[in-house]
Amino acid sequence: MRVVDLIQKKRDSGEHTREEIAYLISGYTKGEIPDYQMAAWLMAAWIRGLSQAETAALTETMLHSGEVVDHSDLPMKKVDKHSTGGVGDKTSLILAPIVAAAGIAVPMTSGRGLGHTGGTLDKLEAIPGFKTDLSLSEFHRVLRECGMSLIGQTDQIAPADKKIYALRDATSTVESIGLICASIMSKKLAEGIDALVLDVKTGAGAFMAKEEDAVRLAELMVDTARGMKKKCVALLTDMNQPLGRMAGHSNEVMESIEVLKGEGPYDLRTLSIELSAWMLYLGERVKSIEEGRHLAEEMISSGKALERFRQNIRLQGGDARVIDDHSLLPMARSSLDINSPKSAYITATHCRDFGVALAMLGGGRNKKEDRIDPGVGLEFHKRIGDRVKAGEKLVTIQYNSEERLAEAKDLVASSFVFGDQAPSALPLIRRVIGE
Amino acid sequence: MRVVDLIQKKRDSGEHTREEIAYLISGYTKGEIPDYQMAAWLMAAWIRGLSQAETAALTETMLHSGEVVDHSDLPMKKVDKHSTGGVGDKTSLILAPIVAAAGIAVPMTSGRGLGHTGGTLDKLEAIPGFKTDLSLSEFHRVLRECGMSLIGQTDQIAPADKKIYALRDATSTVESIGLICASIMSKKLAEGIDALVLDVKTGAGAFMAKEEDAVRLAELMVDTARGMKKKCVALLTDMNQPLGRMAGHSNEVMESIEVLKGEGPYDLRTLSIELSAWMLYLGERVKSIEEGRHLAEEMISSGKALERFRQNIRLQGGDARVIDDHSLLPMARSSLDINSPKSAYITATHCRDFGVALAMLGGGRNKKEDRIDPGVGLEFHKRIGDRVKAGEKLVTIQYNSEERLAEAKDLVASSFVFGDQAPSALPLIRRVIGE
Repeated sequence: MRVVDLIQKKRDSGEHTREEIAYLISGYTKGEIPDYQMAAWLMAAWIRGLSQAETAALTETMLHSGEVVDHSDLPMKKVDKHSTGGVGDKTSLILAPIVAAAGIAVPMTSGRGLGHTGGTLDKLEAIPGFKTDLSLSEFHRVLRECGMSLIGQTDQIAPADKKIYALRDATSTVESIGLICASIMSKKLAEGIDALVLDVKTGAGAFMAKEEDAVRLAELMVDTARGMKKKCVALLTDMNQPLGRMAGHSNEVMESIEVLKGEGPYDLRTLSIELSAWMLYLGERVKSIEEGRHLAEEMISSGKALERFRQNIRLQGGDARVIDDHSLLPMARSSLDINSPKSAYITATHCRDFGVALAMLGGGRNKKEDRIDPGVGLEFHKRIGDRVKAGEKLVTIQYNSEERLAEAKDLVASSFVFGDQAPSALPLIRRVIGE
Repeated sequence: MRVVDLIQKKRDSGEHTREEIAYLISGYTKGEIPDYQMAAWLMAAWIRGLSQAETAALTETMLHSGEVVDHSDLPMKKVDKHSTGGVGDKTSLILAPIVAAAGIAVPMTSGRGLGHTGGTLDKLEAIPGFKTDLSLSEFHRVLRECGMSLIGQTDQIAPADKKIYALRDATSTVESIGLICASIMSKKLAEGIDALVLDVKTGAGAFMAKEEDAVRLAELMVDTARGMKKKCVALLTDMNQPLGRMAGHSNEVMESIEVLKGEGPYDLRTLSIELSAWMLYLGERVKSIEEGRHLAEEMISSGKALERFRQNIRLQGGDARVIDDHSLLPMARSSLDINSPKSAYITATHCRDFGVALAMLGGGRNKKEDRIDPGVGLEFHKRIGDRVKAGEKLVTIQYNSEERLAEAKDLVASSFVFGDQAPSALPLIRRVIGE
């Protein structure tokens, strides 16, 4: 097999065999195939696309480029959730304790925020002392002790993905359904799980703004997981506005704790319960989604989920007193309210720009090396469909630098769309794929 | 300007500005842009294509990445020819002496053979002692003394092309009309010429097998040359069978000398005269193509062209006695005739495979580092349209290795297509583009 022939095949819209994909990926991971040949192949794959079979082969090869974690000594089912990302999307911090408290293990490898979206690891690290760089054996120990465990991608898990992702980032080949699917699934399937619930975001604040693209990605991921004998469904959910009232790292930890205390905003609570219900159902803890919802609600009302989160924070080295004292979280020094310029309905938001503005304030990264300021944030007072009066508060910006505020505030202010008519309501959960 | 944004622009079918092309090419040549980003861009450019304006900008940037040779102290016009390559295509060795003898300077940078096609440099090097690695000042001196001079690509001429070509070769991004045009034209325009005649081959033995591709390449090259104030036409010529009777390095030198002596096969002689006529016309030595043909014929019949070739061989260090004594050229030790399996018309050939078979015998390269055996060759006894009897000689294979012969002979034998009907005749010169 010659690499140039494989590049040419994809360039000319051919479909690779499993062996060809394995040859490319393992050759590249071992350093036998140079970056420039992989870059040419990635661009050809980006433009020509990858079939379902190619995506499955890619996922499997990337998965087996590293270790697959073995949690088989734990008697309960292991179920995880993955979200394609958005603004204010903090459900992992809520559903992991709920599902763990109900008797399902949640081994979660998470990512960091990049671009306009936040990352679960960064959010947890807002908690003083919280460690996410656990070894695989520590990861397993925490899981065994409290039923949930969260780490970042290590060198042991899917190293092929790590190397390929860095190259994609530098060669404008990121946003490809097949490549995204293989990247996500190779990491998730390395966690040693039995089932996976996907939260695929669509709308102005999602990577896949168009619903048809989100549906294609969701279907491809579900098929790929099932091809590898894992139970899987995808919830297609709305990201036309931030999820919950809070964006920013300390903010999102606080809001997650509120939901675990039985409070918090309706949309965030609803989606967290729904995702938990599907995890409990795929983990065979309940016989129906309805039963799953009840069990999830019970884990909140009984305080068991919150207790599980407290235990997890302690086991991962964090200061669990934040649960009762939010002031222990890093907070911005200053705040500014953005008020409505007119009396009207909010009909839409440029949701992605809220994430960009948050990053400008210091709450996100433009480059992988950037440090995050967990104290800055956005608090949203109004949602799509709300009728607002001129001068009424829309959003509060929490900031640490006047200079950064100047850059971000106009973007925040211009990200609301107003109209004279109330917009028709968009369902939060559009559909379930693979039900 | 960010490289990732430029890659993305081409990936999404955008058109680059002149400044963007210059940024990419000069950044890559200086080593500021890594191979992997250039590889991704090349694949995007291969698939999405390059516009005429982009090709012109690419050519110009590549041209000015190195030196442009200055022959302005020579009073005569400087005209060159470039062929896109084929099997048995040796016209450079014939037309350069003809045109030089008629008073036009021919500064020629030529290439080496790769794949199924031969290269002028390799052919000349079959002549014992012939040097093609002249410095630019030696190149100029030989041109001044005998009106023709032949060298290979040096590090001083279009270094951007040299670096990009090597990357294209390793990333399956060679056969792109825009990239091919820029590669050829940047080198040719660096020769310090006033005009250029292009011989664009089409048919089974050409890089551009399809006529419409060949026409597009020809038009793009003519437009690019004219955009840079050079006179230019392209002859679209047939490559459905080898040109002349001979293929292989010593063989082609011998056949070229025959034509310069007023002998040689009709097709080779006709095309050489026609290309010479166009060079004389663009060089303003004659007022019409018809007059150019007559002058070219005269250079042969008077012996002046042959004398010019002899002088050039001496000036470039070669043994000019080969002109009168072919046995001074390296020759293969053995030969084998391939005979016709049936009585029929020859209706077509898999012309490319003759070139591949010649390379198998040792008369070509698969990798740049391969050494060429100038003695091996093919002598064709029959042409398309000929009626042959079963057992009649089709081709003689001249070889040095039984092992290589075994590999090549079936390919040669299976490259003739037979039929019961005489095929309709294909014109050797299909059309002139840019007339």
